[in-house]
Amino acid sequence: MKTVAVRNIVRADPALVERLGKAGVATVHEAQGRIGLAKSYLRPAWSPAAAAGNAVTVLAHPGDNWMLHVAVELCRRGDMLVVAVSSDNEDGMFGELLATSLSARGVVGLVIDAGCRDVAALRAMKFPVWSRAISAKGTVKASVGAVNVPVVVAGVSVTPGDVVVADDDGVVFVPRTTAAGVVAACDAREAKEAAVRERLARGELGLDVYTMRDSLARAGLVYLDSSDEG
Amino acid sequence: MKTVAVRNIVRADPALVERLGKAGVATVHEAQGRIGLAKSYLRPAWSPAAAAGNAVTVLAHPGDNWMLHVAVELCRRGDMLVVAVSSDNEDGMFGELLATSLSARGVVGLVIDAGCRDVAALRAMKFPVWSRAISAKGTVKASVGAVNVPVVVAGVSVTPGDVVVADDDGVVFVPRTTAAGVVAACDAREAKEAAVRERLARGELGLDVYTMRDSLARAGLVYLDSSDEG
Amino acid sequence: MKTVAVRNIVRADPALVERLGKAGVATVHEAQGRIGLAKSYLRPAWSPAAAAGNAVTVLAHPGDNWMLHVAVELCRRGDMLVVAVSSDNEDGMFGELLATSLSARGVVGLVIDAGCRDVAALRAMKFPVWSRAISAKGTVKASVGAVNVPVVVAGVSVTPGDVVVADDDGVVFVPRTTAAGVVAACDAREAKEAAVRERLARGELGLDVYTMRDSLARAGLVYLDSSDEG
Amino acid sequence: MKTVAVRNIVRADPALVERLGKAGVATVHEAQGRIGLAKSYLRPAWSPAAAAGNAVTVLAHPGDNWMLHVAVELCRRGDMLVVAVSSDNEDGMFGELLATSLSARGVVGLVIDAGCRDVAALRAMKFPVWSRAISAKGTVKASVGAVNVPVVVAGVSVTPGDVVVADDDGVVFVPRTTAAGVVAACDAREAKEAAVRERLARGELGLDVYTMRDSLARAGLVYLDSSDEG
Amino acid sequence: MKTVAVRNIVRADPALVERLGKAGVATVHEAQGRIGLAKSYLRPAWSPAAAAGNAVTVLAHPGDNWMLHVAVELCRRGDMLVVAVSSDNEDGMFGELLATSLSARGVVGLVIDAGCRDVAALRAMKFPVWSRAISAKGTVKASVGAVNVPVVVAGVSVTPGDVVVADDDGVVFVPRTTAAGVVAACDAREAKEAAVRERLARGELGLDVYTMRDSLARAGLVYLDSSDEG
Amino acid sequence: MKTVAVRNIVRADPALVERLGKAGVATVHEAQGRIGLAKSYLRPAWSPAAAAGNAVTVLAHPGDNWMLHVAVELCRRGDMLVVAVSSDNEDGMFGELLATSLSARGVVGLVIDAGCRDVAALRAMKFPVWSRAISAKGTVKASVGAVNVPVVVAGVSVTPGDVVVADDDGVVFVPRTTAAGVVAACDAREAKEAAVRERLARGELGLDVYTMRDSLARAGLVYLDSSDEG
Repeated sequence: MKTVAVRNIVRADPALVERLGKAGVATVHEAQGRIGLAKSYLRPAWSPAAAAGNAVTVLAHPGDNWMLHVAVELCRRGDMLVVAVSSDNEDGMFGELLATSLSARGVVGLVIDAGCRDVAALRAMKFPVWSRAISAKGTVKASVGAVNVPVVVAGVSVTPGDVVVADDDGVVFVPRTTAAGVVAACDAREAKEAAVRERLARGELGLDVYTMRDSLARAGLVYLDSSDEG
Repeated sequence: MKTVAVRNIVRADPALVERLGKAGVATVHEAQGRIGLAKSYLRPAWSPAAAAGNAVTVLAHPGDNWMLHVAVELCRRGDMLVVAVSSDNEDGMFGELLATSLSARGVVGLVIDAGCRDVAALRAMKFPVWSRAISAKGTVKASVGAVNVPVVVAGVSVTPGDVVVADDDGVVFVPRTTAAGVVAACDAREAKEAAVRERLARGELGLDVYTMRDSLARAGLVYLDSSDEG
Repeated sequence: MKTVAVRNIVRADPALVERLGKAGVATVHEAQGRIGLAKSYLRPAWSPAAAAGNAVTVLAHPGDNWMLHVAVELCRRGDMLVVAVSSDNEDGMFGELLATSLSARGVVGLVIDAGCRDVAALRAMKFPVWSRAISAKGTVKASVGAVNVPVVVAGVSVTPGDVVVADDDGVVFVPRTTAAGVVAACDAREAKEAAVRERLARGELGLDVYTMRDSLARAGLVYLDSSDEG
Repeated sequence: MKTVAVRNIVRADPALVERLGKAGVATVHEAQGRIGLAKSYLRPAWSPAAAAGNAVTVLAHPGDNWMLHVAVELCRRGDMLVVAVSSDNEDGMFGELLATSLSARGVVGLVIDAGCRDVAALRAMKFPVWSRAISAKGTVKASVGAVNVPVVVAGVSVTPGDVVVADDDGVVFVPRTTAAGVVAACDAREAKEAAVRERLARGELGLDVYTMRDSLARAGLVYLDSSDEG
Repeated sequence: MKTVAVRNIVRADPALVERLGKAGVATVHEAQGRIGLAKSYLRPAWSPAAAAGNAVTVLAHPGDNWMLHVAVELCRRGDMLVVAVSSDNEDGMFGELLATSLSARGVVGLVIDAGCRDVAALRAMKFPVWSRAISAKGTVKASVGAVNVPVVVAGVSVTPGDVVVADDDGVVFVPRTTAAGVVAACDAREAKEAAVRERLARGELGLDVYTMRDSLARAGLVYLDSSDEG
Repeated sequence: MKTVAVRNIVRADPALVERLGKAGVATVHEAQGRIGLAKSYLRPAWSPAAAAGNAVTVLAHPGDNWMLHVAVELCRRGDMLVVAVSSDNEDGMFGELLATSLSARGVVGLVIDAGCRDVAALRAMKFPVWSRAISAKGTVKASVGAVNVPVVVAGVSVTPGDVVVADDDGVVFVPRTTAAGVVAACDAREAKEAAVRERLARGELGLDVYTMRDSLARAGLVYLDSSDEG
C-alpha cells in the first residue's frame, strides 16, 4: 500500500452535489444505471439522516484510526469523509471528538466501513454517520494508511472527489466525471415518477400504467381462480 | 414453479383479523402454541409500526419485482402483501410507488423476505413494511413467479388468506382455518396475563405466582450463599 | 454446569455505579484500558437508552427462561440482570411480565445474550434492554441453569456484582474490584477530552493537538499533490 | 404445536427414490422447476457424500433432541431423517449413538437444520449427514415436539414421505405426489445435457448451442474492442 | 489492558492431557457438565485433525500478531497456543513460519479466534490449527497485548494452563484444577456409551434403552396413525 | 450499467502469471504491499486447489448467469473467469456444463462472488472454482450485464487482464501493470523467508531473528512470573 496523503483533489461542482443530495439515494442509484450503491450493511447511526458531499477517502487499518486525523486537514467545506479499512473490522474508529473537528471544518458527514461510537452525541450534534456497526471499541494510532487514494467501500470502488449521497436508504457514490449526466437523469426520472405516482394514487394499476399485461402473458403467467387450484 | 396468479382466494373474517392485530405478535404466537413466527431478521422499516391483514402471497425471483405489480390487482381492502423470494436476496423490491398503489387499494402493510427502499417516504405515508434489509438496489421485471400460491417466508409456510400480524416484535402468521380458535386463546391468555401482571407489579415473585419452587428443587437447583462459593 | 443460585453477592458502591453510568460506555471502556466491552451485536431494544447497575448474572439454556424467574428474587434495587445462554439463541426470553417484576424490585435494566419481546411495552415502561435480537419466540421452563455464577456474555467474562454500564453505544462491564480506579480514570479522561474538544471546535487540527506530524513522517507518510499522482 | 408422533406415513416408490438420488441435487432441482432446494447453509458433515430417501420429519426444540429418539422407531429401511427446529439453533443434536441406531434400522442419512457432532465417527461409519453446523454442544431431553408432521427445513416446506435427495451440492426435497413426474423430467434433462456437454467439450460455444446471439443483441448487449474503451 | 507476558504458568499433568485428548471434544464437553465448548465457528484449517495440550494464552489486537512471537518463547513441549483478539478480526495472524517455530518447540497445535494462512503448508507439516477463518491477510507488529493472562476465546473464558482439546468436532477447554475429575467422568461416560452403542447396533431402540416411553407420554406425546391426520 | 462485452483486452505476460501462481496467495499478497486480497468468504469448492491466470471479468445480475456464456467466447488459454454480481447472491451460476466449455478453451479456473454447483463433477474434472457458496439454485438468462469491464469482487477492484492467483488460502488480484514488480518482490520475500524458516526450524526464536526484544520493552511489555500475578 502506498502510504500517501494526496492534497488538492478535484471536487465536483457544489451545485451538482446539492442536486444529487436532494434526489436521494434511490433516485440517484436508478438514474446512474443501477450502479454505485454501497452494500446494505452501511446504516445511519441515527435517523432520519441525509447528506451529500465530495468524497475525501481514507484507507485505514483494522483497529487503527490514525489516518482519520490526517484526513481532517485535507477536508474542505462540503466534503464527506469516506473511510475504507484494509480488512473487515467493526471497531469504533470515529466519535464525538472527530465529529467536532470535522464540523469545525464544514464537513457534512461520514461514511465508514467500520464502527462508530458516541451515537448520542452525534445525534445531538446532528452530525450524520453511516457505518457498519455501533461500537465503543477504542482504536490505536500505529499504522500508516492513505488519504485520497481510490478505495473500495462496502463493495463500491470510490475515487477521491466522487459525489457521496447518503440517506435512510443507504449510501450511493457518483463518479465526479459523470455527475452532470446523473443529475439530468434524476430530473427526467423524477418528472416521470411524479406522473406515475399521481396515477397510482388515483387507483390505476401498475399493470396498466406500465402496460405489462401482454408481456406477462407472453412470459407464461396464467390466471386461475382459487377453486381451480384444488 | 407454476407461473400462476390465483384470484378469489378465501380470506379470514375481518373481525378475527382485527382482534388478532390488537393482541399483537407475542400474544398471538403464544396463543397458537408457539408456531408461525417469522425469523427475527424481518424487522420494521420504520417504527413503532403495527398491522394485521389477510395474506396475499407473492413468489418473486432475486432482483426481480415483476410479480409485485401482478399482486397489487389481486389485493383487496384489509389485505397485507407477503413476498417470498426464490433465493436469498436483499434488493429493494418495494418502494414509494408500490406503496402508493397498495395504499390506494386499502392494503394495510407489506411483509417482504427481501429489501425495501424509500424508507423516509414510507414513514411519511405511514405505510408499514417488515423486511430483511433496507436497500435502494433496483430490480428488473423479467421473470414470472406466482401470486397467491403457498410460500415459505422467513421460515414459515404461508397459505394465501392466512392472517398476518406484525408489530415491533416481528411477524406471525395464523392459518385462516384456525384463526377463530387463536382468538379465543388470545382472550384467555390476556385475561390470565392481566392478573399476573398486577401481582408482579405489587412485588410478588414469579416463583410464587407460578409456584415454581418445588419443581426447581426437584430439578436440582441448590441455593448457596456467596461465601459458600470460595 | 453447577445448578446453583447464589445469594448475597457483594455489590459495588452505588456512588461508583452512578459515576460510571454518567461517564457512559465509550469513556468507561477507554478508562479501564480498552477491555470489558461486549460485542457490538448487543443493541438497545429501544433508544435512546442508558443504565448502570450491579450485575446479577444468569446462565440459561437455549429456548428456556426458567432461571430468569429464579434471578428476580435475588435482585435488589440498583441491580441490572445479565443473562448468558449456554449456546447461541435468539428466542424471546424476556418481555413485559418479567420487566414488570424487575421494575417492582428496583432493577434498572437487562442485558441479555439472547432475544427479548414486547418491545413496545418495554419502551412505554421505560425499562431498558440490551439484547442480540428482538424475537417473540416463546420459551419453556424445563432446564435448570445458574444464578450469580461467572458467565461469558457477548464475549466478556462477567462476575456477579460487577458494574454494568449500557447506553446507545453498547454495553461495558467493570469488575467490582477495579471500579474505583476506573472512576478516577474517567475523571481524568473527561477533563482531558473537554480541553481537546474545545480546541477542535475552534478549528485546531488533531494533527497539532496530539502532535502527530513527526511520528507520521517517521512512519512513512508522504504528502503528494493530486497532480503528482498521474 | 401438536405434540404428536404419526405412524404409517405414505412413502414414495423406492424405484423413484433411487432414480432421483442418481440424478443428484442440481438435476432434480432443475427438473422440478427450480423449487424445493434447501438454503445453502446445509452442508455435508463429511464429503463426498450422497444419499436419497423418504423423509421422516421431526420438529424439535432448540437444545433438545428428545424427538429424535421418538423418530427412530418410526423409520424404516430407505428412510432419511429430516429434522427442523422451532428456532435457529446449532447445538449438536445428533452424533454417533443416534447414527448407530439409525444405521441398524436401514436409515440412509440425516438432514438437520441444527448441528451434529462425532464427525470423525460418522465418516468412519459412512453415515451421511447434512447440517447447518458441526457442534459438540450437548442437548437435553425435556420438551416434546412432533414426528411426521409438515415442517419447514432450511426454507423448504417438507411433508412426511417426501423424497429427500442430498449430495455435495446440498439438499433438495421432492413431494411424494410429484416424484414420478420429476423422474421423467430428470430423464429428459440428462439426455439433453449429454448432447450439450459433448458439443461444449468439442469447443462449441454456449452462445451458439443455445442460439443466444440475437436475443443478447436485442437485449442491448454491445461488443467493443478494448481500444474503444478509452 | 495489562501489557504483560507471564512466565512459569502452572500446567496440567501430561497424563491427564493425553487422556482428555483421547476422549475427544464431544465426550469431554459432556463429561464436564456441558460447559467449556468454543462456539462452532472455530473450525480445523485442515482435517481430520486432533490435538490436546496445555493452553498458553495470547491476547492480540486486530490485524496485529506481535504477541504471538512473544508467546512462542513461553511455550513448552506439549503446549497449545490459544489466541484471543481484542475485537472480531479474521486476518491471517498465523502461518507457516510461526508453525515452524512452534513445531521446533514441541507445541502441538493452535487455537486462534482470528484467521490463519498457508493452509497447504500447515497440512503438509501436520500442524493442526483451529481458526475462525482462512485468510492470507497480513498483519502488523505494532501494538503490545498480553501472554498468559485469562482470555475469552470463542465465547469461553480460558485461564493459562487449562487443558485444550480439539478435533473435527471443534474445541473444548477444561480448567486445570478440574481436569482429573473430568477424566474420571470421561471414563464413566465411555463405559456407559459402549454398552449403549452395542445395544443400539443390535437394533434396540433408544426409547427402550433409556426408558423414555412413560416420560414422553406424561409430557403429552400422542401417537397417531397417518390416516387420523386427515 | 453499460451493457457491453469488451474484446481484445491486454493480458499480463504468461511468465509473470506462472511465477505469481507458484508464489501463492499469501506471498503475492505480502509482496504487493498487503493489498488486492479478496475477502475470506471466497473459498475453494474443492481442495487442495491452486490456479493463476489473466482475469476475464463478468458483471452479472443476481440469479442470472447469461453473461457467463458471453464471457466464454472472450476467454483464451491461460485465462481465469472472474464473476461479480450487482448485488449479494449465492445462486449456483456455474456448474459442470460451463466448466466443460471453459476447459475446452484452456481456461484454468473460476472466481465467482456467488454460488457454484456440480461440485463432485468439478472435482472429477479438476476444474478449480473459488466461490462464496455451494448452491444448486438454478439461474435465468434474462438480463444483460457486462464482460471485461472493471468490477469489484469480494471487496477488491479488478481490471480485465489483471492477474488472478488463487489457492487454499483464498484469492488475490495483481494489476497487470505492476505484475513484474510484484514478481521481483516475491523473489526477495521467498529468499528472505527461506533463511528465516531454517533458523526457526533449528529452534531460534522470532524474538531474536527479528530482533524484537527492545521494541517490545519500549512499547511497554513487562515480563512477570506466574507467582507475581497473585
